[in-house]
Amino acid sequence: MTVQIPQTYDDLQQKYQSFISRRDNDRHLNIFWETNPSKFNENNGQKFIELSGGMPHESFFPIDSMNLNILKEPVSQDTISVDITKEKPDKLPLLRTLQYALSEGFQPLIDFIMNFITKLNNIPLYDKSLWKIIIAGGSCDSLYKFFETCTDESTTVMVEELTFVPVISNIINTGAKVIPLRLNLDNSDEGIDLNYMESLLTNWSKGPYKHLNKPKFLYTIPTGQNPTGLTQSIEKRQKIYQLAQKFDFVILEDDPYGYLKFPKFNHKDPNSNIYKDGITSQEYIEKVLMKSYISMDTDGRVVRFETFSKIFAPGMRLSFIIMNKFFYDKFLKFQEISTRQPSGIGQQIVYSTIHSMAHSSNDNDVIEAWLQWIMKLAGNYTERRNVMLESLYKTQSYKQNLLDFVEPSAGMFVIIKIHFKGDNIIEQMNDLAKIMDNNGVRAILGYKMAVDQNFSHDNLNYFRLTYAYADNTAQIKEAIDRIDKSLVQYFAK
Amino acid sequence: MTVQIPQTYDDLQQKYQSFISRRDNDRHLNIFWETNPSKFNENNGQKFIELSGGMPHESFFPIDSMNLNILKEPVSQDTISVDITKEKPDKLPLLRTLQYALSEGFQPLIDFIMNFITKLNNIPLYDKSLWKIIIAGGSCDSLYKFFETCTDESTTVMVEELTFVPVISNIINTGAKVIPLRLNLDNSDEGIDLNYMESLLTNWSKGPYKHLNKPKFLYTIPTGQNPTGLTQSIEKRQKIYQLAQKFDFVILEDDPYGYLKFPKFNHKDPNSNIYKDGITSQEYIEKVLMKSYISMDTDGRVVRFETFSKIFAPGMRLSFIIMNKFFYDKFLKFQEISTRQPSGIGQQIVYSTIHSMAHSSNDNDVIEAWLQWIMKLAGNYTERRNVMLESLYKTQSYKQNLLDFVEPSAGMFVIIKIHFKGDNIIEQMNDLAKIMDNNGVRAILGYKMAVDQNFSHDNLNYFRLTYAYADNTAQIKEAIDRIDKSLVQYFAK
Repeated sequence: MTVQIPQTYDDLQQKYQSFISRRDNDRHLNIFWETNPSKFNENNGQKFIELSGGMPHESFFPIDSMNLNILKEPVSQDTISVDITKEKPDKLPLLRTLQYALSEGFQPLIDFIMNFITKLNNIPLYDKSLWKIIIAGGSCDSLYKFFETCTDESTTVMVEELTFVPVISNIINTGAKVIPLRLNLDNSDEGIDLNYMESLLTNWSKGPYKHLNKPKFLYTIPTGQNPTGLTQSIEKRQKIYQLAQKFDFVILEDDPYGYLKFPKFNHKDPNSNIYKDGITSQEYIEKVLMKSYISMDTDGRVVRFETFSKIFAPGMRLSFIIMNKFFYDKFLKFQEISTRQPSGIGQQIVYSTIHSMAHSSNDNDVIEAWLQWIMKLAGNYTERRNVMLESLYKTQSYKQNLLDFVEPSAGMFVIIKIHFKGDNIIEQMNDLAKIMDNNGVRAILGYKMAVDQNFSHDNLNYFRLTYAYADNTAQIKEAIDRIDKSLVQYFAK
Repeated sequence: MTVQIPQTYDDLQQKYQSFISRRDNDRHLNIFWETNPSKFNENNGQKFIELSGGMPHESFFPIDSMNLNILKEPVSQDTISVDITKEKPDKLPLLRTLQYALSEGFQPLIDFIMNFITKLNNIPLYDKSLWKIIIAGGSCDSLYKFFETCTDESTTVMVEELTFVPVISNIINTGAKVIPLRLNLDNSDEGIDLNYMESLLTNWSKGPYKHLNKPKFLYTIPTGQNPTGLTQSIEKRQKIYQLAQKFDFVILEDDPYGYLKFPKFNHKDPNSNIYKDGITSQEYIEKVLMKSYISMDTDGRVVRFETFSKIFAPGMRLSFIIMNKFFYDKFLKFQEISTRQPSGIGQQIVYSTIHSMAHSSNDNDVIEAWLQWIMKLAGNYTERRNVMLESLYKTQSYKQNLLDFVEPSAGMFVIIKIHFKGDNIIEQMNDLAKIMDNNGVRAILGYKMAVDQNFSHDNLNYFRLTYAYADNTAQIKEAIDRIDKSLVQYFAK
């Protein structure tokens, strides 16, 4: 096929209409209110009076003002005090965020996100008028709504063979089919197996899924993949994007962990941590962060999912999506019909917190302040990753070749592969998990995150560990000791 | 049919399985985490270590603590200061609400709601073990999810002929059919026309909708109906419940305005306001509030929708539903697959605010404090309602019989019916709306809230006004003056 850069909305519509679900085509929002501004002339000092919207007056809201104490940096005790009132901050005061609002999210928060992703170059290459940002209620909400908008019984979606399986529910529940892609679980060529993928697509009509339509979507977690912790190289991303153009599928880039990116583990100096060495935000952007799929996108075929859950707090239930304007319009229609606006108070707190971290309200200062927060966070994760890997290398189990593992360079997860004997892997995993539980440690049983246990038969023998939730690094060491003890016990039987 | 009070979950399942949508039956959540507590014995002082959940540690959340200034009563300047920290309030601290959480909502907030609705007797008559409360992200979210769970191409849903039409989108988008019920728009027998309804159901196979399946659901806003402001009498509710039993449909009671209930407008004393006269909460519950459908429910056939939007603030995006446990389980499954948990920080703020209004943490004190807030709010709405009605009675338009209206005794809305000449009502409504806009006032054009404009041909000639959003009562008077002026201008043409 010939690749064309979209120039107009019509180009997008023509190109992507076939990527919209049957259900979306039947979806219409009945509204009864007027959306045009009044033409009433207020110059004579008389105010236009609105008796339309069934909105409580702001004086009826019980929250008069709030004050946040925000951390100067993660884990710190130092705090900054932030006042939020019905008039302040002036671009997004409580008066607005406590009230009903538009389903796409508040414009001042969207403006911040736009500035931020532009600074990071996480923006498409086609014209800026043809893509948009929408705010949603957490990544689960984003993904659920996207699949409702775009997939149906006729759709095939490719996913990594081991993945965040709740998303599979979202896809399958629309009637769509999910097929697994082979993953390389080694440190030299991490992530989707390109040869497998290209061969599958090229020989579709002779392959194992020939009874299904050719795939319209690839769902991938390219950085710090869940559960494997793998990060796709730039070369791999470029080749996958070329495959997307050749075989005309859309890439759904789910990137909750992208900011938690670290250099490879340093065996000679396990404690090395560039974030503690004093890296600048420019170096972070240019040398540490991975190039996103959306930054390669000339065609409008990448949809990028981000969330505030991992870098702010999950309880905010806030996420956002960057996508071409045609997909955006369809998504927004569905958001209007279903949940309507994401939490107003959540948007308020995220906006106010980030802006209060900065020395001034200047856009660049705000971006820099948020980058500093994120880098400090990534520094903490680096330390935790280092401790977990160092501890794993020191275990009896590793030395006795009872396990091996993949060193993550992003995200929250490490998988440890257990060298079981025999073929009844699931039974053995369950037995080992019981011993671990008895020893006071728990991890995710890998086979539960396989899309197709038959397909992934050789990749079921792992546990997913996280270093995110431990109270401190001493607890990480203790946890690995307990896992080690459990493995030695298990294999001594 | 014989009516049986459900005794067990199996009874519910048997009775209501046919009320579940085709799509729900295909809906499954893939989870990979362990939900059973560990059996690890922590008695020896060793703590169980969780390496499963991909949750950021709480020390990584930027919000260390927050302080709310909450109003002592609506419109007041007096405030109470409320501290929320990672440890406080002890039943629901920030540590929990900033983190990932269960999709059904936080138990301490659910417990409060349970105590509150029990006090108000808004609970079913069948066994307490067979119904539950779930928290969702605002009433739109509640209703959207309920229809996704229960309706499909085979379902017919009855609704009031004039209604909150966005909900029609939710129903129709599942493939279900909506049919309008005749409304009485007079002060003596408000709301659904019982004769019409009973005749329709009794003669279904000979009626205008005989091509559709018999209705499985009635969606109704029984108190302060939107847009009409009508409130169904208790006798009407009892008869409709009997019809529901006879014709085996489920009643969806959407009650956002139920707490904003007032005595009838007093023509002799337009300023009379029982809330300012010093009514007790017990009198409010027993003499002012309407008996809800759910309080009559012996069978599990009422689903009650409430929201914090009208009595707290819309920007919280929090609502809840009371329903039988069988519907609950299906709804929860869908919530888990779609949006997952409602906003944690929203739940935090609602919980902390309400509990801080009370003199003590005693359950009864908390309920009483929240009732006092709500009654003060209802008092403000009563005053606004009074001012709007008194102003309407004084208009030239009313005296010249250009309009009449229904006196609301609940909620936020008044409809004014315009006595147009001729048959081109919609055209005339649009013309009049332009004149109103020129005069600096706007209201909702009634025909836009009709389910079926042909069916409601004689009920399209109204505007919906709200007294909720005006800055003060002076502005309400000014708005009615402008409407009056507009009508006189229009009919002078």
